[in-house]
Amino acid sequence: MPHIDFKNDFPGIRSALAYSPRTAEPLGVLAEILLRSNDGLSPAERELIATYVSYLNDCFYCHNSHGEIACIYLGGNRELVNQVRNDYTTADISDKLKGLLRIAGKVQQSGKAVTKEDIDNARDYGATDKDIHDTVLIAAAFCMFNRYVDGLATNTPTDMDSYPLRAKQVAEKGYGSHVYSAQQPTATDKTTL
Amino acid sequence: MPHIDFKNDFPGIRSALAYSPRTAEPLGVLAEILLRSNDGLSPAERELIATYVSYLNDCFYCHNSHGEIACIYLGGNRELVNQVRNDYTTADISDKLKGLLRIAGKVQQSGKAVTKEDIDNARDYGATDKDIHDTVLIAAAFCMFNRYVDGLATNTPTDMDSYPLRAKQVAEKGYGSHVYSAQQPTATDKTTL
Repeated sequence: MPHIDFKNDFPGIRSALAYSPRTAEPLGVLAEILLRSNDGLSPAERELIATYVSYLNDCFYCHNSHGEIACIYLGGNRELVNQVRNDYTTADISDKLKGLLRIAGKVQQSGKAVTKEDIDNARDYGATDKDIHDTVLIAAAFCMFNRYVDGLATNTPTDMDSYPLRAKQVAEKGYGSHVYSAQQPTATDKTTL
Repeated sequence: MPHIDFKNDFPGIRSALAYSPRTAEPLGVLAEILLRSNDGLSPAERELIATYVSYLNDCFYCHNSHGEIACIYLGGNRELVNQVRNDYTTADISDKLKGLLRIAGKVQQSGKAVTKEDIDNARDYGATDKDIHDTVLIAAAFCMFNRYVDGLATNTPTDMDSYPLRAKQVAEKGYGSHVYSAQQPTATDKTTL
């Protein structure tokens, strides 16, 4: 049961966003820029970083939501998403992305945990300043989003079929205000969250 | 030395914001809403929560920057800010704020660390749903800002006289885009960061 009365029945972060539309707006803009940009890292790589950090933070709603979005961008390759969650060092991904996930994992612990060796390693595999910047900010942002979701004890859907359906909406429409409409979800919406 | 070339000489988070103006915009809007709203919690209470979480995250730049802004709002009472950093339970603040700082400290650890008892305790001292929401989001947001600052190893001013001067600018003008102007700081700016 949520720690506060959100006055809506949305699941996960959507309940908090609908409760507080003023803060929802910059949070949505930030997510859209960080996760759907094609400048440098691909949307799939960005969602994998978000999924990995959310998994490390044990945020069930976030790592499943973003894992499913990554899965869509990866043509349905859910196995690859699971590999990244469980042990990215042996996953079938580029060495550059492995280097960036190493940095993201450090950021999840603490900003100070990131070492020059972590940065040099990512650079050796081709990571640019912008790739490193975006990785650090995505990882940092999910340390916020995960805490927002779990710190308020938002409702987490346990129907795992709901995540792919919801992911499809985000993959198609992005993180705009439609994801946190202040309107109550309709019966149909509820089945597709 | 910073982990990436920011192409500017700003200190702390300002170097990262100037490097990435697209993401700086929603981050600035979020900070402005969360820290300068007078709806429920006062700006002083909001900055004390930000200072406390930044202190727990060992982010020297952030806890000194926000501690000085809190100090201004508190009429120069730096001792009170230090009390909150060192042991808020004995600080000369309201029981309601103590209850909210207890929640903020849990959020700093993990969203899941926040218990019903933490929430009930804050409510017993008068915290509303909005106070609790804002506290969780401020604490979560500083888990992001602190990691952004330290995860990129931004330059931290060691001249402690620079923090009150900079705080005065933020207290007067807020967290708008002027705090992360992409322009290089002038010689004068450098002395007031």
